[in-house]
Amino acid sequence: MGFDMRRAIAHKRDGGRLGAEEWQAIVAAHQCGEADDAQMAALLMACFLRGLDVAETAALTRAMIDSGETLEPPAPNCVDKHSSGGVGDTASLVIVPIVAACGVPVAKLSGRALGHTGGTLDKLEAIEGVRTDLSPERFATQVREIGCAIAAQSERLVPADKRMYALRDRTSTVQSLGLVAASIVSKKIAAGAQAIVYDVKVGSGAFFANLDDARELAQRLVDLSASLGRRAVALVTDMEEPLGTSIGTGLEALEARDFLNGERRDARLLALARTLGSALLAAGGRGENAGANFDAMLASGAAYERFERMLAAQGMRPGALERLAPHAQSAPANAGREGFVAAIDAGALGRLGRELVDADGSNAGLIVHKRIGDAVRVGEALATAYGSVASAAARAFQAFTLDDAPPPKRPLVYFETASDSDARGTAAGARSTLEIR
Amino acid sequence: MGFDMRRAIAHKRDGGRLGAEEWQAIVAAHQCGEADDAQMAALLMACFLRGLDVAETAALTRAMIDSGETLEPPAPNCVDKHSSGGVGDTASLVIVPIVAACGVPVAKLSGRALGHTGGTLDKLEAIEGVRTDLSPERFATQVREIGCAIAAQSERLVPADKRMYALRDRTSTVQSLGLVAASIVSKKIAAGAQAIVYDVKVGSGAFFANLDDARELAQRLVDLSASLGRRAVALVTDMEEPLGTSIGTGLEALEARDFLNGERRDARLLALARTLGSALLAAGGRGENAGANFDAMLASGAAYERFERMLAAQGMRPGALERLAPHAQSAPANAGREGFVAAIDAGALGRLGRELVDADGSNAGLIVHKRIGDAVRVGEALATAYGSVASAAARAFQAFTLDDAPPPKRPLVYFETASDSDARGTAAGARSTLEIR
Repeated sequence: MGFDMRRAIAHKRDGGRLGAEEWQAIVAAHQCGEADDAQMAALLMACFLRGLDVAETAALTRAMIDSGETLEPPAPNCVDKHSSGGVGDTASLVIVPIVAACGVPVAKLSGRALGHTGGTLDKLEAIEGVRTDLSPERFATQVREIGCAIAAQSERLVPADKRMYALRDRTSTVQSLGLVAASIVSKKIAAGAQAIVYDVKVGSGAFFANLDDARELAQRLVDLSASLGRRAVALVTDMEEPLGTSIGTGLEALEARDFLNGERRDARLLALARTLGSALLAAGGRGENAGANFDAMLASGAAYERFERMLAAQGMRPGALERLAPHAQSAPANAGREGFVAAIDAGALGRLGRELVDADGSNAGLIVHKRIGDAVRVGEALATAYGSVASAAARAFQAFTLDDAPPPKRPLVYFETASDSDARGTAAGARSTLEIR
Repeated sequence: MGFDMRRAIAHKRDGGRLGAEEWQAIVAAHQCGEADDAQMAALLMACFLRGLDVAETAALTRAMIDSGETLEPPAPNCVDKHSSGGVGDTASLVIVPIVAACGVPVAKLSGRALGHTGGTLDKLEAIEGVRTDLSPERFATQVREIGCAIAAQSERLVPADKRMYALRDRTSTVQSLGLVAASIVSKKIAAGAQAIVYDVKVGSGAFFANLDDARELAQRLVDLSASLGRRAVALVTDMEEPLGTSIGTGLEALEARDFLNGERRDARLLALARTLGSALLAAGGRGENAGANFDAMLASGAAYERFERMLAAQGMRPGALERLAPHAQSAPANAGREGFVAAIDAGALGRLGRELVDADGSNAGLIVHKRIGDAVRVGEALATAYGSVASAAARAFQAFTLDDAPPPKRPLVYFETASDSDARGTAAGARSTLEIR
C-alpha cells in the first residue's frame, strides 16, 4: 500500500494539520511521481487557503531538505544572509567581505534576478571572468581559505523546491507564508548555514507592499529556523526607494567597489549594511563591538582587499574590478519644478534598469541622485540613465513624485526579531544609529 | 495573448467570482492543453474552499456543455431523471416505462455503478442481449417511436466533465456543491433534456449522510437548471435502508419486472416511484391526475408492455425477461433474537451485493425481507444471500441492528423543491400519500 495522497489533500482541505511523516511521504511521493503535479497543486492551494503553522512548516521544510543532498557547514560558525529582493540592493556584495574580514565566515548562496529585483549572482557575473557555479567542494574550500564565497545553489540541494516553486508559480500559490518560508529556509539549511540573517523588504520596490505581511514572514523565518536548530535574525527594512544609488548589474557591482574602497558611500546603503552586518556578526558569535569592527574593516581597506580576493578566487580577470565603468551614453532625468521628492516608484525603476541592461549590456542602467525627502531645484538631475534606450530618462523621470513639502521621515528598519537575545540585542544596538528620512 | 489562467486562479483563490467569459476560457484552455491539469486542480481546490454561487455554477455548466456536442431534444416535452445513487434503487427501471405509457417521452441517460451504489446501465445489461451504447441518433429515434430509452452517455457529450471528474477524483475535490451540480446538470442539458427530476438520496446507503448537504444540492440543481432555462424538480429522499428489496444487477432487473407485471410490488419502491413519476409527468406537462394515471398504467399492464418494447428495441433476446431468476445457491441471514429492525447499513449491503455479483454473475446478490421498523421473530430470515460466497449471509446479518422497540417513523421524502409552482404542486400532492416508517 502506497501513501494515500488523496486523504492527505482532503485532511488539509478540511483545515487539518499534516504531521512530519505525512510531509515526508508527500514530498517523496511527488519527487518519485507517485503523486502527480495536479495532486500537489491541489494540496498547495489547500495550504494557501488553510495556512500552515510553524510546526507544519518545519515538517515540510525538513521533508524538502531531505529530498536532496545536504552540505556540511564549511566552517562551524558559518553564516548566510537572505534578502527577499529589492531594487538597487547592493547590500550582500558589500556585507559579505566586511563580515568575513571581521572573522566570521560567510557562505552565501544567492539567486538570480526575479521580476523587477536584481539578483546578486547577475551582479557578480557583470565583473569580467567571475563565476558563481562553484561545486559544493570548491565553495566550502573557498569559505575556509578566504572566509567568504557567493555562489549559485547547486541543483542537487533541495530538488523538491525547484519543482514545487515552478508548480506554485503557474498555479498562483506563490504568496503563501508557510510555503515561502519553507522554500527560503530549506535551501539555507541544506547548504550548511548555522546562522541566518533575513532581510525582508517592504515598499514600492519589494514583493511585499504591506508591513504586516512582511513582519509575519520575518517572524515565521526566525521561528522556523529556530525550530530546525538554527540561530536567526530577521529584519523588515524599507524598500520605498532604491537602497543604494545604482540600478543595473554592472552599475551595482561598481557601487559595491566604490563603497568598499571608500570612493562613494551612500548613507542609506551604509546604514543598512552596518545593521545587517552587525546582525551577521552577532549570529556568528562576534556580536561584541560589532558596529565598530564593521567600521574598522571598512576604513582599513581590509574589506576591499577581502572582496578582491573572493572575486579572484571565483575567476575574476586581472584588473576587471578597476575596469568597471558606466555605459558611455547617458541622459539625465531633470526635475521640471522645484520642491521635494515625495515618492519614488522603486518597482518601475527596477524594471527599467533591467530593461536597459537587457538592451545594452551590464554597464547600462540607472543612477539615482535624489532620494525621498531631498530638496530639488528646477532643472536639477533626479537620475541619470545609461545606455542607448532613447526613452529611458523620460521613464526614469516618471518614477519620481515631487511635492511642495518634504514627506515625513520613516525608519529604515521597521521591525526586528531574533531567535535568541544575544543576536537581538546586538543588532538592535546597531539599529539605534539609523535615522533615515 | 492567450487567456491568463494564473490570474483566474488567483481571483478565485481570493474569493472573487469568475464571469461567463472567464469560465468559457478556463474550460477551453484546459481542453486544448493550454492550461494544464495542475492549474485546473489548483482552481478546483479554490472553488471547493471558496464556493461557487448559482450564477458562477451556471457559467461553468454552460462552458462544460460547450466543450462537446449537444443533442436536439428527441421530443419537445422530453424529460430525464437523475438519482444521486442508492442501494436497491430500481426506481428508474420502473418509472421510465410508466411515465412513457402516460404519454410523456423519457430520454434517460444513465451511469455505471459507483462505489456501493448500483448503476442503471449495469442492471439493464443483466438482461440477456440488452445494449445501452446507443448512438445519439438511435437513442432519439427510439424515444420518438417507443416513448422511452435508457442509454449510456455518449463520449462526445461534455468531454470536459470526464477530464474534470477524473481530476477531482484524484485531488479530493469531488464533494463541492457547485462542481457536483455542474457535472450532473451539464450532461442532462447537453443530451437535450427539457425538464429534469433530481432524486438526491440521503442516509447510510447514499453519498450524503447529512440532510443539510443533500437539501443544499437539491436546491442548487433546481436553481441551476432553471437558470439554464430548464424546468426542474428535486427531491431529497431516504436511503437509510435499500429502496426496494433486491440488491444486485440481475436481481434488481427481476424486481423491476415483477413490479411492473404486478407479481411483487414493494410498498417503499412503489411510494417513491409514484412520487418521482408524478413529478416527471408534471415536468412534462401532464401534471393533472398524475398519480391516478400512474396507477392506471401500472394496473392495465400498459407499463409492463412499454418496458418490454423498450428492452426489445435495445436488443433483448426473446424470452430473456421471463428467464431472469436468482442464483440457484442461497443462504438465509436469520435473526438471532426477537425485536424490531432498528437500522440497516445500506452501504454495507450495497458493497456486499456488488461483491456477490462480481463473484458469481448478475443473478447473485441479496434480497432483503425485513425493513426498518419491522417486527422480527427468532430465526426469521432478515435477508437471503444468493451465490456461492460462503460468508455472504453472515455479512448480510451484520448489516441489521435489532432493538426491543421499533424506531420512530421517518419520511420517505425529506424535502422537495421545484423551478415553478405547477411542478411543485403536483409532486407535493403525490407525496402527501407517503407514510413510511
